[in-house]
Amino acid sequence: MGEENSFLTATYLVSGVGDFYKRAEKIALGLTVGTWTGLSMEEKDKLIKHLGKVEEVQVLPGDEQGQGKALLTISFPVLNVTPDFPSLLTTIFGKGSMDGKIRLVDVTLPEGLRREFPGPKFGIEGIRNLLGVYDRPLLMSIFKQCIGLNLEELNKEYQSQLEGGVDLIKDDEIFFQDDEAPAIQRVRSFEEKNRRHYEKTGKKVLYAVNLTGPVTQLADQAKRLIDAGASCLLLNVFSYGLDVLHQLAADPNIQVPLMAHPAVAGALYQSPDYGIASPLLFGKFLRWAGADFVLYPSPYGSVALPEKEALQIAQHLRQTDRIHRDAFPVPSAGIHPGLTPLLFEDFGLDFIVNAGGGIHGHEEGSAAGGRAFLHAIEAIVSGYTLEEASNYSPELKQAIKQWGVHSR
Amino acid sequence: MGEENSFLTATYLVSGVGDFYKRAEKIALGLTVGTWTGLSMEEKDKLIKHLGKVEEVQVLPGDEQGQGKALLTISFPVLNVTPDFPSLLTTIFGKGSMDGKIRLVDVTLPEGLRREFPGPKFGIEGIRNLLGVYDRPLLMSIFKQCIGLNLEELNKEYQSQLEGGVDLIKDDEIFFQDDEAPAIQRVRSFEEKNRRHYEKTGKKVLYAVNLTGPVTQLADQAKRLIDAGASCLLLNVFSYGLDVLHQLAADPNIQVPLMAHPAVAGALYQSPDYGIASPLLFGKFLRWAGADFVLYPSPYGSVALPEKEALQIAQHLRQTDRIHRDAFPVPSAGIHPGLTPLLFEDFGLDFIVNAGGGIHGHEEGSAAGGRAFLHAIEAIVSGYTLEEASNYSPELKQAIKQWGVHSR
Repeated sequence: MGEENSFLTATYLVSGVGDFYKRAEKIALGLTVGTWTGLSMEEKDKLIKHLGKVEEVQVLPGDEQGQGKALLTISFPVLNVTPDFPSLLTTIFGKGSMDGKIRLVDVTLPEGLRREFPGPKFGIEGIRNLLGVYDRPLLMSIFKQCIGLNLEELNKEYQSQLEGGVDLIKDDEIFFQDDEAPAIQRVRSFEEKNRRHYEKTGKKVLYAVNLTGPVTQLADQAKRLIDAGASCLLLNVFSYGLDVLHQLAADPNIQVPLMAHPAVAGALYQSPDYGIASPLLFGKFLRWAGADFVLYPSPYGSVALPEKEALQIAQHLRQTDRIHRDAFPVPSAGIHPGLTPLLFEDFGLDFIVNAGGGIHGHEEGSAAGGRAFLHAIEAIVSGYTLEEASNYSPELKQAIKQWGVHSR
Repeated sequence: MGEENSFLTATYLVSGVGDFYKRAEKIALGLTVGTWTGLSMEEKDKLIKHLGKVEEVQVLPGDEQGQGKALLTISFPVLNVTPDFPSLLTTIFGKGSMDGKIRLVDVTLPEGLRREFPGPKFGIEGIRNLLGVYDRPLLMSIFKQCIGLNLEELNKEYQSQLEGGVDLIKDDEIFFQDDEAPAIQRVRSFEEKNRRHYEKTGKKVLYAVNLTGPVTQLADQAKRLIDAGASCLLLNVFSYGLDVLHQLAADPNIQVPLMAHPAVAGALYQSPDYGIASPLLFGKFLRWAGADFVLYPSPYGSVALPEKEALQIAQHLRQTDRIHRDAFPVPSAGIHPGLTPLLFEDFGLDFIVNAGGGIHGHEEGSAAGGRAFLHAIEAIVSGYTLEEASNYSPELKQAIKQWGVHSR
């Protein structure tokens, strides 16, 4: 990086007994220059610019088992890393990830280093420009079923989602073995439907096609899909690695929005004592790596994040920033129209309402399910209640009958 | 895959209250065809070949907090996946990884699917052939310090490691910003030393150079290093993704052994309740992906795995198998010559003794530290005790004085 005297910081939540300052020093040394004691003055002079430093040790209340807890903040010279996630992660949480009860909870990068990460290509404003929707949260529909269906059946499903008036439609993330409806054929067919829908209604829609296959062929596959007309790419980023998203986002030939799916991420963020905290993983890392949309568990469903974390992710993704564009939070799972007031209260205007069962489960079908949601969203942003709006929307009335209205 | 009626299985350790069979069914359905109830007979007929099935529910004793535990084994049709880790992981532990207390503890693949993963290029026999050492565990030395040193200083360090008689020498995994000694220059210089060492002593040595940089340039960088003479590549596989290792191993232009470093893996395996169990992660996944050497925490040091897990990893890596070559277990951290009897008792002949501090910390320097280890290893495999051997080896005598002899 060539930036002398520039530091990144990592904050760890550690548990255990013993001297937390010593533990912090062990991390600061062990992950940078190794054993410091025993070096000659000359060697110390040479290595000092690579030395990690303990910035803060904040002792927290211990738990019932008498284990102490502390937040340790260590600074690492930017000189030690190259501007990519493998280098960054190995430096701050390589060996360290295996050393006792330890969880990586925050990372800050100095401006120069952050600039070397791509960030979102479009950001919230860019996505709104693509869709021409500015005054409300966007609505995304997930295919009810992908595996095992042929193109004709998927076409039908796509069409009924379109007719619901949604803004985005995404593939199921487990859609790989798609012999009956290869990704390239889906793109051609669904994007043609998008064009016709636009001609007829003036409404633009993005289709997030699942980008899959060997990592070495991913950029080429992305380009093939884009050549076929793809308007958005879905990536199971945690099954590939953060640098894979970074490199796709940095590729000048890939000029469509990138949507990051949280599959496999639970293995990293779910434990309270180990792994990587969800606000850092979803809110910071995915934005730096270049996701325009970040899907993550909502605080409402059965697969849920604590509310504080879900909101902090949204805050990180949307923070105003001279370096990177912002990204759309997509709090997912367990979303139905009756949650719209709560969603709006929690996430405001700039997020994506993402639903599968909450659209397809509508008794009148997926198109009615989409409309119910759209009516709910439009009502709430205009200051009406769902009960008021349902007087004008039989679809919403039905949805409320099925799922109820949830408030805090 | 085209293999109808072929299944892979995944076993999960789950905790919580409620009906474990229901939870297993939810996983089996949720990660394959979604909602099964409500489908027509025709739809069911169509989707049945993609349906996950509950194979076993084994209820375990609960914990003190009254939480129940169970092992759930689910089978997934091979039809649902493509032969790569992103597809496999997203299918068996995608959304599932985020759903309650759940840990992926085992995976079995049917033969047809396993054959599509590369496995080690060399295996234990191939590595022994490269080195010409057949009758003892191999000895690897880790650079004491890489960051901040120039090529001249690293040359000196390399030379003293060579003189200790070790079989392999590896880079520090946090060696990225190597302006003063670029990887390609290290390879040229150290491999030249290896050649001279061979001419002089008849002893072959492998140098594991850290393969780093953006994922999109990794295969090219590997080829450049190999063209410059690299004899082995070190990869921080968990910071890149398992498919990155798979693709390097499958690349016909990369014909040197691949060494997998466990950096960042602690974020995945350390929690008892979440993530991925270490025997699966290190013992199965890394072998399938093609690592010839698998570094992981030994059961002895301060960064340690439970003994049972450390042994199970070695067992998985060395299991005789018609499909894949075996791989060298490299139980690392906290290794010094006084542990050799215990290492031999636990790991037998086919593993790598991997030491950093246990070599460089020797009072007479790194060359003496290497010799002390080699003498310890040769003594133990020949049936002598360390005390006996130290009568003939002043280096070993000194090492034992410094670190003592550890036995169970």
